[in-house]
Amino acid sequence: MKRIIFLLLGVATLAGIFSYMARASGQSDEDASPIYGVKIPAGYRDWKLIAVDHLLLAGKSDQLRAQLGNDIAIKAFKEGTLPFPDGAIIAAIHWTRVPSEANNKVLDGPFPGTQSFLIGSRVNVQFMVKDSKKYAATAGWGFADFKDGKPGSEALHQTCFPCHAPAKDHDYVFTHYAP
Amino acid sequence: MKRIIFLLLGVATLAGIFSYMARASGQSDEDASPIYGVKIPAGYRDWKLIAVDHLLLAGKSDQLRAQLGNDIAIKAFKEGTLPFPDGAIIAAIHWTRVPSEANNKVLDGPFPGTQSFLIGSRVNVQFMVKDSKKYAATAGWGFADFKDGKPGSEALHQTCFPCHAPAKDHDYVFTHYAP
Repeated sequence: MKRIIFLLLGVATLAGIFSYMARASGQSDEDASPIYGVKIPAGYRDWKLIAVDHLLLAGKSDQLRAQLGNDIAIKAFKEGTLPFPDGAIIAAIHWTRVPSEANNKVLDGPFPGTQSFLIGSRVNVQFMVKDSKKYAATAGWGFADFKDGKPGSEALHQTCFPCHAPAKDHDYVFTHYAP
Repeated sequence: MKRIIFLLLGVATLAGIFSYMARASGQSDEDASPIYGVKIPAGYRDWKLIAVDHLLLAGKSDQLRAQLGNDIAIKAFKEGTLPFPDGAIIAAIHWTRVPSEANNKVLDGPFPGTQSFLIGSRVNVQFMVKDSKKYAATAGWGFADFKDGKPGSEALHQTCFPCHAPAKDHDYVFTHYAP
């Protein structure tokens, strides 16, 4: 009888451990981008500004965007270092672009017909992580796209590197540092 | 003879000192905004991002813009502290918005009809400096507008505070922190 109890306890314990490992591993995978395994870098919203832009994705989305860089990336941008050194990370935050009726009312007096557009909500945030060994197959860059904290699909992430190919002369980075 | 030489040397020295003082004072005034005496804060381009926006000043200028804050300002924005505490400084960088034919060519494949706009050149940079005693007459805010490193006219700076009056409920700051 004692043997059976020990056996059952042992099986239950092992089952618990495996279940925990599966959950932990599952959570970890869910937080990282497919293909590249890039997670959201802590504190990226406080990184320094590289540049801003406006993208009108025909029929899909109208976005105001900002690119931020960690210290390694910012130093490389300022000094014109190419290729970007290992450890460089670029964050691209995309928000919807929405007209501001309140601002227009204020500005219409001194500047009649003026149109002010502010950010609405977050669309997504993307990252490029430089690791020349880990991501050797994609010119040293690992990519990630997150919406509401969750990474996009594998199919989406398969488009990252080929889409960045036209920026090969600038180490696959479209963004340039704003004066 | 010796006396005359000492006297001449003394006069020459004094003249040099006065000339230096006048120059130093002149440069100092030229570098500061009229009315408020605000100079360009060192290192402001490395401050953290508050938000971005797009302003179409009818018939005048089409701008992509970013607002940056020093640490006191960023903390206040994040915590919703109103009024902003003394020492808070907000920088607003304005660039021209220009279409990117290169980006459009890349994006037209996956997203036909897409329009990408990047920043062109700097239009100006503006600052709001909180000092509740020094700027008591303008709700604690000192204003400054610089173009190519030179402050705008007194007439221009007379428009700053009244134009910000509609944002009184947010301590005269139009910008809100971007998520």
